[in-house]
Amino acid sequence: MHTLEDLQQIINDSFDKLKFDQKPKELYDPINYILDLGGKRLRPALCLLACELFDGVIQQAISPALGIEIFHNFTLLHDDIMDEAPIRRGKPTVHIKWNPNVAILSGDTMMALAYDYIMKAPGEFQQEVFSVFNKTAIEVCEGQQYDMNFEIQDDVSISDYLEMIRLKTAVLLAGSLKIGAIIGGANKEDAENIYLFGEKLGVAFQLKDDLLDAFSDENKFGKKTGGDIVTNKKTFLYLKAFEMAEGSNKELLGLLFQENPIDPAKKIKKVKEIYRELRVEAATKKEIELYYNMALNYLDKVNVSPEKKSELVRFAYQLKQRDY
Amino acid sequence: MHTLEDLQQIINDSFDKLKFDQKPKELYDPINYILDLGGKRLRPALCLLACELFDGVIQQAISPALGIEIFHNFTLLHDDIMDEAPIRRGKPTVHIKWNPNVAILSGDTMMALAYDYIMKAPGEFQQEVFSVFNKTAIEVCEGQQYDMNFEIQDDVSISDYLEMIRLKTAVLLAGSLKIGAIIGGANKEDAENIYLFGEKLGVAFQLKDDLLDAFSDENKFGKKTGGDIVTNKKTFLYLKAFEMAEGSNKELLGLLFQENPIDPAKKIKKVKEIYRELRVEAATKKEIELYYNMALNYLDKVNVSPEKKSELVRFAYQLKQRDY
Repeated sequence: MHTLEDLQQIINDSFDKLKFDQKPKELYDPINYILDLGGKRLRPALCLLACELFDGVIQQAISPALGIEIFHNFTLLHDDIMDEAPIRRGKPTVHIKWNPNVAILSGDTMMALAYDYIMKAPGEFQQEVFSVFNKTAIEVCEGQQYDMNFEIQDDVSISDYLEMIRLKTAVLLAGSLKIGAIIGGANKEDAENIYLFGEKLGVAFQLKDDLLDAFSDENKFGKKTGGDIVTNKKTFLYLKAFEMAEGSNKELLGLLFQENPIDPAKKIKKVKEIYRELRVEAATKKEIELYYNMALNYLDKVNVSPEKKSELVRFAYQLKQRDY
Repeated sequence: MHTLEDLQQIINDSFDKLKFDQKPKELYDPINYILDLGGKRLRPALCLLACELFDGVIQQAISPALGIEIFHNFTLLHDDIMDEAPIRRGKPTVHIKWNPNVAILSGDTMMALAYDYIMKAPGEFQQEVFSVFNKTAIEVCEGQQYDMNFEIQDDVSISDYLEMIRLKTAVLLAGSLKIGAIIGGANKEDAENIYLFGEKLGVAFQLKDDLLDAFSDENKFGKKTGGDIVTNKKTFLYLKAFEMAEGSNKELLGLLFQENPIDPAKKIKKVKEIYRELRVEAATKKEIELYYNMALNYLDKVNVSPEKKSELVRFAYQLKQRDY
C-alpha cells in the first residue's frame, strides 16, 4: 500500500507531464495556469487510495483521478469569478490575470476535459464511474447555488448549512473515494460505505475549516483569521452562536453580521468575544467529532482488513487534528 | 421515415415533458427558462433523422438528442454572458433576467445534465457517442475562443474565419448527425461521411447567416439587417470585401470597421455600398454553393438508398435557399 503522500506525489508527477498544448492558446493557457498552481491533490490521491484499498491497480485509476482534479479546479475557477476573488493559492485568479470571459470559457473547456479523463476508466467500470461523477458534478453546482443563496437569505438553519457544505464540499471527496473503489473492484455495499465515509469526513473537513478561519494560529494557518467574520459568512460558528445567543448578545451578533466596517479588526474581536462567551469553539469541535465518528463507523463497515484501512484512518485523524 | 418537421415536433414534445424540478430552484429555474424559449430544435431533430437513415429506432436516440439540445442551449447561455447580449429569442437573457453568477452556474449545471442525457444512449454505443460528443463540446469552446480573439485581432484571414465557424457552429450539427447515425447502427465510414455532410453544411449555414445579416428582407428575417456591420464583426462578407477592395475603398472599409457611430444607419449604408460595388453578395453565394456541394458529395457517399436520403437533401436545399 502507498501512503497518501506517495499518491499525492504520483498525481503531481502526472500533472507535471500533462500540458494542454492545443490551440487557441488563449483558451488553454489559463487551464495550464490553474492546474500548475498546485494544491494538495487530495481528491485524486484519495481516489487512488480507495482503489488500492480493494487491491485495484492504481494505474487504472490515474486518468479518472486526474479528471476529478481537473473538475475540482474548474469549480474553483468559476467560483472565483462568482466570488470576485482576486487571489488563489497566492497567485492572481484567472478572471483577474486574463478576464471573466476567458475564465468562463476555459472553465467550460476544463469541464469537458474532466469528462474525457473520467471516461478513461476501464470499460467495465465506465458507466458506473460516469454515474458517480456526473451526480457529484451536479451536486457541487447545487451546493454552490445554496452558498450564494445563503449570502442574502436570513433564515439559514444549521441543517441547511450542513446540507450546503455536504453538496459543495463533501460529495466530491466522497465521489473521489467511490470512483477509486469501483475501479478497485469493490462491491456495491463497500463502495457505498467508502462514499459515506468520505461524505461525513468532508463535512468534518469543512467544519474544521470554519473553525480554523476564526480560531487558528495565524502563523500556522498561513492567512489572517476572521475572514469569514469580515465577509459576514454564515458559517457553522455563526449559526451555532446565533442559535445559542440570547437577549442583547443575539441582537448584537445579528447587527455585526450586517456590517461592512472599514476597520474589520474591531468587528472580529467583538464577534470572537461572543463566540468565546457562548463556547462556540467547543460546540464546533463537538460537531466535527460527531461527523468524524460517523465517518469512521462507515469505514468500519467496509469489508477489508484493518491494516489496509489504516492509511485512511490516519488521514481522517490528521484532518480532524490539523491546526492549519 | 419521418420528416424533419415531425422530428422537431417529437423533440418539442419531449422538452414539454422535461421539467427540472430539483432544488435549489434558483439553479433550475433559469435552466427551464432557457429550454422553454424554444428554437428550431434543429440539432436534435437531425440526430433522430440520421438514426432513421440507418434504420435505427429513434426512441433510442431521443435522450442523446435532448442532451445535444441542452448542451447547445448551455453554449448560448454562456455566450450571451460573454457577448453581453440582452435578448435571446425575444426574451431577456438569463444573465439579465437573473444575474451573471446565476447564468454561469446554471450553465455549468446544464453541461452536466447534457452529459447525463448523452450517456442514456444504448450501452453498446455509449463509448462512441460520448467520444463524438466530448470532442464536439471541446471544439465548440475553441470556436468561441477564436471568435472572441478575432474581435481584437487585425490579421484574420478568410481561412481563419472558416475554421472558426467550423468549430463554433458546424461541428455541433455534424456531431448531432454522427451521434444519430451511430445509434442507428451506421458503420464507421458512413458515420464519418454523414459527419462531414453536416460539417460542410454547417459552414454553409453560417455563411448564409452572415449573408442574411447584411442582405435579407427585413420583414422575413425578423430582425434589422446590418447588425454584424454595426458591431464591426469580421464576417465572411467583410473579410472577402477587404480582400478584394483596393485603394481608397480598402482604406475606407478598414476605417468603417473601427467605428462605433451613434447613428449606425449611415455606416451600414456605406459598407453595403462597398459590398455591392465589390459584388460581395455573389462571392458569398459562391462560397455557400461550394460548401453546399461538398456537403452533398459526402451525403452521396453514404451507403443508403437515395430515397432515404431525400429528407436530408431537402433540408440542405432549404438551408441554402432560406431568405430569413
